[in-house]
Amino acid sequence: MMKLHILGCHSATPRSLVFPSSQVLEIDNELILIDAGEGMQIQLRKYKHKFNKIKHIFISHLHGDHFFGLVGFLSSLRLLGREKELHIFAPVGLKEIIELQFKIAQTDINYPLIFHELSSHDSQNILDEKKFKVDTIPLKHRIYANGFLIREKEKPRKLNMESIQKYPEIETWAYHNLKVGKDFVTENGTIIPNVELTLAPLPPKSYAYCSDTIYKPDIIPLIKNVDLLYHEATFLEEHKELAKKTKHSTAKQAADIAKQAEVKKLVLGHFSSRYKDEEQFKIEAQSIFPNTDIAKEGKVFEI
Amino acid sequence: MMKLHILGCHSATPRSLVFPSSQVLEIDNELILIDAGEGMQIQLRKYKHKFNKIKHIFISHLHGDHFFGLVGFLSSLRLLGREKELHIFAPVGLKEIIELQFKIAQTDINYPLIFHELSSHDSQNILDEKKFKVDTIPLKHRIYANGFLIREKEKPRKLNMESIQKYPEIETWAYHNLKVGKDFVTENGTIIPNVELTLAPLPPKSYAYCSDTIYKPDIIPLIKNVDLLYHEATFLEEHKELAKKTKHSTAKQAADIAKQAEVKKLVLGHFSSRYKDEEQFKIEAQSIFPNTDIAKEGKVFEI
Repeated sequence: MMKLHILGCHSATPRSLVFPSSQVLEIDNELILIDAGEGMQIQLRKYKHKFNKIKHIFISHLHGDHFFGLVGFLSSLRLLGREKELHIFAPVGLKEIIELQFKIAQTDINYPLIFHELSSHDSQNILDEKKFKVDTIPLKHRIYANGFLIREKEKPRKLNMESIQKYPEIETWAYHNLKVGKDFVTENGTIIPNVELTLAPLPPKSYAYCSDTIYKPDIIPLIKNVDLLYHEATFLEEHKELAKKTKHSTAKQAADIAKQAEVKKLVLGHFSSRYKDEEQFKIEAQSIFPNTDIAKEGKVFEI
Repeated sequence: MMKLHILGCHSATPRSLVFPSSQVLEIDNELILIDAGEGMQIQLRKYKHKFNKIKHIFISHLHGDHFFGLVGFLSSLRLLGREKELHIFAPVGLKEIIELQFKIAQTDINYPLIFHELSSHDSQNILDEKKFKVDTIPLKHRIYANGFLIREKEKPRKLNMESIQKYPEIETWAYHNLKVGKDFVTENGTIIPNVELTLAPLPPKSYAYCSDTIYKPDIIPLIKNVDLLYHEATFLEEHKELAKKTKHSTAKQAADIAKQAEVKKLVLGHFSSRYKDEEQFKIEAQSIFPNTDIAKEGKVFEI
């Protein structure tokens, strides 16, 4: 299971009480930070996320509302005495920005900070962990941008203890083989089929983050059938010309993508400050894709 | 009159609900921003300060807790359509940091942003406005740092309308000369002395900001008799060795400076997160300099 926690989901124009793009995805007892708008560490503290649970950071693009909170967070980790590695996946340029600030402050980053600089316009697998993997989703914005597709890997089968207890000869040493799908063979050669002894695991879950981008239907094959799609909807359809000009999407366009990709659920974000009532985004999208919700600071989506 | 508004007054280690160094000084219908720790634009909005009233920004030094909030603020001004000039006085290096971030975001700053890069180790007059002027106060920290001394200029004398009305021959055209201190000469040559027609103006006020710095008594002549001194007190005297090592001051040392400089009032700030009770800073300083107060987010000091 994954859990998405929204730290900020508004576009850049400053307002009180809302924060620019930032979110953490809880997966396998780790927090993955996706985008790092200003104030993200304030939000992390507010919602009581442990800083040290973050091992991987993904930055979509280098507009300030998606990364101005990062350098302060990295500094805080330093002051908090972090020792373990931190990996940042971001477009070329962020490394230079961060390193310049530490250099001018005459401060060493005293933990291993590893930058993975992105520049490809094709989807790439950029992280392959034991329990999940991350691919880029090439987006189209005013500057180079990627979305991120995070997929759990197949989980081991679950032991059906009720069935197993019927066979005293199955001892605990055999459990590993059962979990990976093998049948059990007794000493006299009888085969007890795996399906009798185990239950299917929960299907692996998937999450796709797409912000910022113009309406870009060629991402559909990449995000096909994901459990949750977060797609930017900076504008409503009434301002679709403005969306096109600024290379953003409308709520309707995000819903079109969700529908065509047959995702399970759509969450909209990156709302422009011109709209007072964000429910409008939901209403517009739901007319096309009913299972749509809107992001909000502090909201949690179980995947 | 000046008014000091504290936006943040804590040292860098992150905590909930407190902000790193940032403050605005209200003077002559202008807001002077002094230091710009992360989250300062959130604080500006919270306390309802108009962004456009800021024309001059002073950055003491390039440790992140004094400037990480700046680039987001500059971006917001851009999005809000600012047109008028903005002047930033900061150590060499900040211009490069800011310009790199706008360059990589492929974004133009669409208002005149003028950097005044500081590198001198002597006190300099860096701003001379109609009603006030600003000098640097060379500090000693782990990296190059300045405090700032902001002084109102002499104000015009105030018209004593009660006295003036006794002389019908004094018409409004003569008021300007009275304000600048000239006597009034009647048509028949009688001299009415200025002191009879005007009142002394309020004395010009002065404010000194000193953060971050080791105990540095050679600043005393520069800040002699100021109305308000904000001096960092990262530590209590019990940790004076740590203060020395990290080139910070203790509350007692700040009070020593205030006493020797014969300032009217001392405000302490830049508290380390190791202390739970910030009243201790006040108690320690007051034993040496009674008119001491401590800074707090949202607190306002009239000067």
